[in-house]
Amino acid sequence: MEVFRVLHMNGGAGDFSYANNSLLQLKVISMTRPIAEEAISSLYCSTLPTTFTIADLGCSSGPNTLMAVSQLIKTVENIRTNLCNNPIEYQVFLNDLPGNDFNAIFKALPNFHENFKKEMGADLGPCLFTGVPGSFYGRLFPSRSVHFIHSSYSLHWLSKVPEGLEENKRNIYMAETSPASVLKAYYDQFQKDFSLFLRCRAEELVDGGYMVLTLLGRSSEDPTSKECCYIWELLAMALNDIVSQGMIEEEKLESFNLPKYMPSPTEMSIEIGKEGSFVVNRIQVSKVDWHVYNNNDESNGLRAGGYNVAKYMRAVAEPILVSHFGEAIMDELFIRYGEIIVDRMAKEKPEFVNVTVSLTKMK
Amino acid sequence: MEVFRVLHMNGGAGDFSYANNSLLQLKVISMTRPIAEEAISSLYCSTLPTTFTIADLGCSSGPNTLMAVSQLIKTVENIRTNLCNNPIEYQVFLNDLPGNDFNAIFKALPNFHENFKKEMGADLGPCLFTGVPGSFYGRLFPSRSVHFIHSSYSLHWLSKVPEGLEENKRNIYMAETSPASVLKAYYDQFQKDFSLFLRCRAEELVDGGYMVLTLLGRSSEDPTSKECCYIWELLAMALNDIVSQGMIEEEKLESFNLPKYMPSPTEMSIEIGKEGSFVVNRIQVSKVDWHVYNNNDESNGLRAGGYNVAKYMRAVAEPILVSHFGEAIMDELFIRYGEIIVDRMAKEKPEFVNVTVSLTKMK
Repeated sequence: MEVFRVLHMNGGAGDFSYANNSLLQLKVISMTRPIAEEAISSLYCSTLPTTFTIADLGCSSGPNTLMAVSQLIKTVENIRTNLCNNPIEYQVFLNDLPGNDFNAIFKALPNFHENFKKEMGADLGPCLFTGVPGSFYGRLFPSRSVHFIHSSYSLHWLSKVPEGLEENKRNIYMAETSPASVLKAYYDQFQKDFSLFLRCRAEELVDGGYMVLTLLGRSSEDPTSKECCYIWELLAMALNDIVSQGMIEEEKLESFNLPKYMPSPTEMSIEIGKEGSFVVNRIQVSKVDWHVYNNNDESNGLRAGGYNVAKYMRAVAEPILVSHFGEAIMDELFIRYGEIIVDRMAKEKPEFVNVTVSLTKMK
Repeated sequence: MEVFRVLHMNGGAGDFSYANNSLLQLKVISMTRPIAEEAISSLYCSTLPTTFTIADLGCSSGPNTLMAVSQLIKTVENIRTNLCNNPIEYQVFLNDLPGNDFNAIFKALPNFHENFKKEMGADLGPCLFTGVPGSFYGRLFPSRSVHFIHSSYSLHWLSKVPEGLEENKRNIYMAETSPASVLKAYYDQFQKDFSLFLRCRAEELVDGGYMVLTLLGRSSEDPTSKECCYIWELLAMALNDIVSQGMIEEEKLESFNLPKYMPSPTEMSIEIGKEGSFVVNRIQVSKVDWHVYNNNDESNGLRAGGYNVAKYMRAVAEPILVSHFGEAIMDELFIRYGEIIVDRMAKEKPEFVNVTVSLTKMK
């Protein structure tokens, strides 16, 4: 599986599209916003650039895409106007893998610009949006060209499925039943990928530039901890049910593993220290209910909530599952997954764990 | 009609897609390549940048998109390696309107990178591609950030249909039968648009930066000259036939005009002089047969050639025609257009006129 070719959220604007199933990600962006705002404010005040370059890595395609970046611009504009500084230019790099639905983002831009200008007033300088297709486990931007890098809910994806997972059998990610060799293979891949990520960003950021990264992680040092693995264990259960029904071969399931890693703050700090270009300003763990819902939505009972979890997981995981298992089983798989989640959510109150880190590139 | 929303080449990879009907544009890029190469060589040698920023305006989506830019990089790499200079980074901005099929370009990038690296060798620095959705009649890039701007077969599109064309009746562009008020309205819009284009690019180019622009134009000073208007007069004929058949209302045709202008070298020079930021290094007129064909193509007789012209014109003009007339008449319209073109090409040998200008931004 070539991850950079198959990994992307569901495109378009349909029922299972990421654009229509990204409330969880929106909630996480809102929860961690104070850290991003603190960082970008401090950066603006210390450098006062005339062109402010902001990159969002793993921007995806949906309402969150332009929202996340426009919030950052608003924060800077507030300070700028309070300081009575002249208007500045914003260069915005929206990055995701080449399979991401950039067309949908770009088509939304004319209306976005119109509304944003109305909201911000005539004093707003040019906001220049560009799309950057490519893996963040490689160079994306010119040397010393970016002031601020933001990434939310993307960096838990690895560059590839680790090698040596043959013994992971009917699991699709690390689980309690995974042998030690599997845990090691995953951790090795995380170390390689995250340190490569840091090296690339260190080249691209200006001296004193900031980076605020939020990813799915865990607070425990145990990589098979329920707080990070549970949601995928339930998907593995649904896949095993599909195998029992004879809809897919056992071997097909045994050869599938997710290219993901959900690190602890300690594991991240170790790699940041080894790489050596960044100072950690802040590292924070937060939690968010699986059950996210729109306040205006009347159908937010627990049962609907469980199916909703299956739906937003589908928006995220479907392309990578289709590339391995084919499209035919998807409806059945996500119905089963939904049933399992509904059942579990009736008995417990599971949460995702987010790790947010704010870094400054040393001069 | 909001041109920036409806103007784009046919997307995808179908029979009428621009990607499969862009041999003419490829031929023009090849014909005018020496001028672009001369400019970019001179620019590299005089500035020796460590990050070389190249923009292609109106890049569209097809084989020409990455080809045009990669040729420019090859030219610079040749000189760089001859001079034994260190590898440099290339930042490539691919610009087109938001309706352009950027997804198709981005999906082609991983293979392109793989092949390009193989061809150029390990000494090639990072080539960082970004997509820039937006009208070039406005700001696209940060101030003083771009070294070289290239644009081929795009700048003859205006930002909007000129106002005051009510008397142009059954014409869809300037024609011999157009009243003077129509010619003036078109020229006014060209002047406004081209000078705005120059002002924006003057802000974005570094001092000493270059710009090489090729557009459909004319050598004559008569704006209704056959050399620029003929191809559209024949399309107007086909549309009038469709009106006669009762497939569209007469009023519908009378309210349609193309947002295009095909200037003479003199008209371009006047605007460049008025704007004042650029020195003209070279301005050149070239001609290209309507009848372009692939040398490997066995079906390149004149009849096939005529229909082929209708097909590549469809790839270019269909979205804007659909936005006004609807999709229903397109097949019929382009069959009729093909018949008319076949008939004319049997009697004469029509050519397009290209104007290419090479400019340097003054320090």
